[in-house]
Amino acid sequence: MKNIVVQKYGGSSVGSIDRIKNVAKQVVKAKHENNKVVVVVSAMGNTTNELIEKAIKINKNPSSREMDMLLSTGEQMSIALLAMAIQELNEDVISLNGYQCKIITDDKHKKARISDIDTTRIKNELQKGKIVIVAGFQGVSQNNDITTLGRGGSDTTAVALAAILNATKCEIYTDVDGVYTSDPRIVKGAKLLEKISYDEMLELASLGAKVLHPRCVELARKYNVALVVKSSFNECKGTEVVEVNKVENVLVRGVSLDEKIAKVSILEVPDEPGISYQLFDILSKYNIQVDMIIQNVNRENVNDISFTVNTEDLKEVQRISNELKDKINAKDIVTDESVSKISVVGIGISGSSNVASAFFRNLYELGVNIQMISTSEIKISCIIDKKKGREALEYVNQKFRLCSDNYVFEEKVV
Amino acid sequence: MKNIVVQKYGGSSVGSIDRIKNVAKQVVKAKHENNKVVVVVSAMGNTTNELIEKAIKINKNPSSREMDMLLSTGEQMSIALLAMAIQELNEDVISLNGYQCKIITDDKHKKARISDIDTTRIKNELQKGKIVIVAGFQGVSQNNDITTLGRGGSDTTAVALAAILNATKCEIYTDVDGVYTSDPRIVKGAKLLEKISYDEMLELASLGAKVLHPRCVELARKYNVALVVKSSFNECKGTEVVEVNKVENVLVRGVSLDEKIAKVSILEVPDEPGISYQLFDILSKYNIQVDMIIQNVNRENVNDISFTVNTEDLKEVQRISNELKDKINAKDIVTDESVSKISVVGIGISGSSNVASAFFRNLYELGVNIQMISTSEIKISCIIDKKKGREALEYVNQKFRLCSDNYVFEEKVV
Repeated sequence: MKNIVVQKYGGSSVGSIDRIKNVAKQVVKAKHENNKVVVVVSAMGNTTNELIEKAIKINKNPSSREMDMLLSTGEQMSIALLAMAIQELNEDVISLNGYQCKIITDDKHKKARISDIDTTRIKNELQKGKIVIVAGFQGVSQNNDITTLGRGGSDTTAVALAAILNATKCEIYTDVDGVYTSDPRIVKGAKLLEKISYDEMLELASLGAKVLHPRCVELARKYNVALVVKSSFNECKGTEVVEVNKVENVLVRGVSLDEKIAKVSILEVPDEPGISYQLFDILSKYNIQVDMIIQNVNRENVNDISFTVNTEDLKEVQRISNELKDKINAKDIVTDESVSKISVVGIGISGSSNVASAFFRNLYELGVNIQMISTSEIKISCIIDKKKGREALEYVNQKFRLCSDNYVFEEKVV
Repeated sequence: MKNIVVQKYGGSSVGSIDRIKNVAKQVVKAKHENNKVVVVVSAMGNTTNELIEKAIKINKNPSSREMDMLLSTGEQMSIALLAMAIQELNEDVISLNGYQCKIITDDKHKKARISDIDTTRIKNELQKGKIVIVAGFQGVSQNNDITTLGRGGSDTTAVALAAILNATKCEIYTDVDGVYTSDPRIVKGAKLLEKISYDEMLELASLGAKVLHPRCVELARKYNVALVVKSSFNECKGTEVVEVNKVENVLVRGVSLDEKIAKVSILEVPDEPGISYQLFDILSKYNIQVDMIIQNVNRENVNDISFTVNTEDLKEVQRISNELKDKINAKDIVTDESVSKISVVGIGISGSSNVASAFFRNLYELGVNIQMISTSEIKISCIIDKKKGREALEYVNQKFRLCSDNYVFEEKVV
C-alpha cells in the first residue's frame, strides 16, 4: 500500500476540546493531500497523572497489570474523541485501541516492548478510505492482557507503525517547533535544525533535549523511518531526522544541558576484580539507569568509582550503595546534586580533535571547573557545577556559532 | 465449578475512592465465606455523563461505534481501581474488560445484545483462586469492536454471567435496601419486600420502580438465576427475586407511579385498516417505546387513538405524528404531559376481580379521574392527573395494606 503517512500527536496537542478539533483539521488536511493517514494519539494533557493519583489513593503499590488496565483508558478516550472530531468534519474514520490493531508486546507491564503488529485491520480500514486512529502507548500481551510501553511509548507506537506499514514518513507533532541546536528556553538564539542525523538525535534525546525519546529514535534508525518533528500549533516545517549521509556535515550539531543528574562517588574501594560488577549489577536489577562511569586508580590498591544517575533515582541509589558499602569495603559514599552535564553533539566530532579542545577552552574561559569527562564517537560531555550550567550552555552555543545570526550575544560579566 | 457467586456494584456503589474500598471489603468477605467470586462493576458515579458531555462538545451526533469506544473506558477504570483496592487487602484478583472475557454481542452499538460468553478465562482465573472483576455494560462484536449494552447493561452482564457460570446467586448491589411495595421516597411507610416473583418484578421495573432494569429480570427469569437486590451501604438482607411458586401468594405485591410519561391523542382518524400500523410502525423505526395504547370508536367512521410515551421521547413523537397527520387524515394531534401512571402489581390479580374494583374505588374516593386504563395478567394501570399522582400512590398503598404496620396513615383532606 502506498502513500501512507503516520502522524503522532502528544498529550499537549490533544489537551483540550479545541486542540482536539485543531488536530482533526490537520489530519483531514493530510488526507486531502492524497495520503492514507494513520494517526497515533496520546492521552489528553494531564489524564495519565490524574489516573495515577486516583490509583495511589487506593493502593500505594498496585500491580503493574492493573495499572496498565487503568492507564490505557487515557489513550482510548483520546482516540474516540478525535474520531468524533473528524466525523464532525465529514471524513470517514475509525479508532482502534492496542488490542484491536494487534500491537503484540511482551508481558512486562508498564514497560512492554512491541514484538509484532498484525496490520491486517489497519490496512483494511485504510483500503476503505478511512482515516485510522491508533491508541499510542499501549499494546496487548500474548495472554490478551493490556500492556503499556512506558516512557516514549506513543512515539514508539508511531515509529513502529510507520516501519511496518512502510509509510512515506512519520510526523511527530509536539508543542515545540522542532529540534534546536540547544534548549530555546535557555539559549535565546538557539537555531531550529532543518535536519539532524538519527545518531545525533539519539545523543541529544538521551542528553535531555526531550523532544524525542531515544527509544523511538533507535527504532526509526533501525528501520530507516523518515521522521519529522514539528509543532501541532503552527505551520513551521519542523526538523527531519534522517540517515547520516543525508545531513550536512558539521562539526557540532547542538549543545545540550542536563540539570537533572546527580554524581555518586564510592571512595577507596579495594582494587580487586568484581567490585564494579557487584555495584552496577545491583543497580541494574533495580532498573536504575547509570549514565557516566569513571574509575581512576587513586593510590595503591584502592580505587574511587564515580558515576551519574537521574536525580529522581538518587534516594534509591543511596540506599543501595549504603547497603553495599561494607560488603565491598568502601571507605565512604558521597553524593552531589549540585552538578549538571553539558554536552556537544555532532557527527564531525569523531574526525576532529579540535572540538574537544575548543569545548574545554570555552569552559575554561568562563572559569568553569570540569569534574568528569566522557566521550563517544559523536559526543563530548562534561560534568560541571550546576550554578554555571546555563551560562556555559549559552556561551558554548555562541562560540560554536549555533545561535541565529541576528541574535546579539551579550557578554556576561561574572 | 461450584460455589460461584456473582456480585454487581452500580455506579453509586463505586462513586468515590472510599466507596471502592468499601466494595473491596465486601467482595473479600464473600471470598472468605468460601465462594468463588465474580464481580461486575459499572463506571464510577458520574463518569459516563462526563464522557458524554465531552463528546457532545466535539460532535453533537457522533457515531455509536466511537461513543462505545469512549464510554467503555468508564468501566475499565472502575475494574482496575477495584482490583487495586482488593490487592491492598492482600487478595489475589484480576480485572477483565468485555473483550478479555469474550462477552460477544451483536454489532448494534450503544444497545448491543449479548450472544455468547466464552468463560474459559474467567474459569481459569477462578480456578487459580483469584477474584475476577468484570467490566459491566460492555462487550465485543464479532468484528472485535467494543460495544455497550445500553440501559440496564451492567445488571445484564451480571445476570448473563451468573446464568452461564451456573452461579449459586447473583447479588445486585445498589443504593437502596431492596425492592419496596412502593417508592419509599414518596410513600413513607412502604414495606421492603423479602421476596418478589420475576413477573411482578418485571412489571414493577418497567413501571418506574427503577431498582432493576426489565431486561436483566427477563434474563434472570429465562435462566432461573437466583437474583438478590440489596444495598452496598448496609447489611440489610435485601429482596430475593424468585420463581412465582417460591413467593407468598398475595393479591397485590406493590404499587408504582410513573411520572415521566406523556399522553398523545390522534383525534378523528378514518376508521380504516392500516392506520394504527402506519403510526406505530414509524414510531418503532425511530426506536420510540410506546406504552399504553387505547383506541375507541368515537362516532361513525372515525376513531380516536391515544397512547403514552416517555416524556423524553415526546418531542420526537410530536414531530413524527405531525408529519403523519395529513397522510392518515387525522383531524388533530393533542399531547399532554400533565399525567402520571399509577399501577398495582401482583400475581393474585388475574384470579380476582376484586383488585380492579378496589383500585378504582380508591381513586374515586380521592376524587381522581381515570383517563386511561390498561391491564395485564398481573397488573392494572391507570393514567391520572399528575397533580394527584403522589397522593393517590400513598392512598392506594395504605388501602391495600402495603405500608408497614407501625406507619400511621394520616387522612388527607383534599
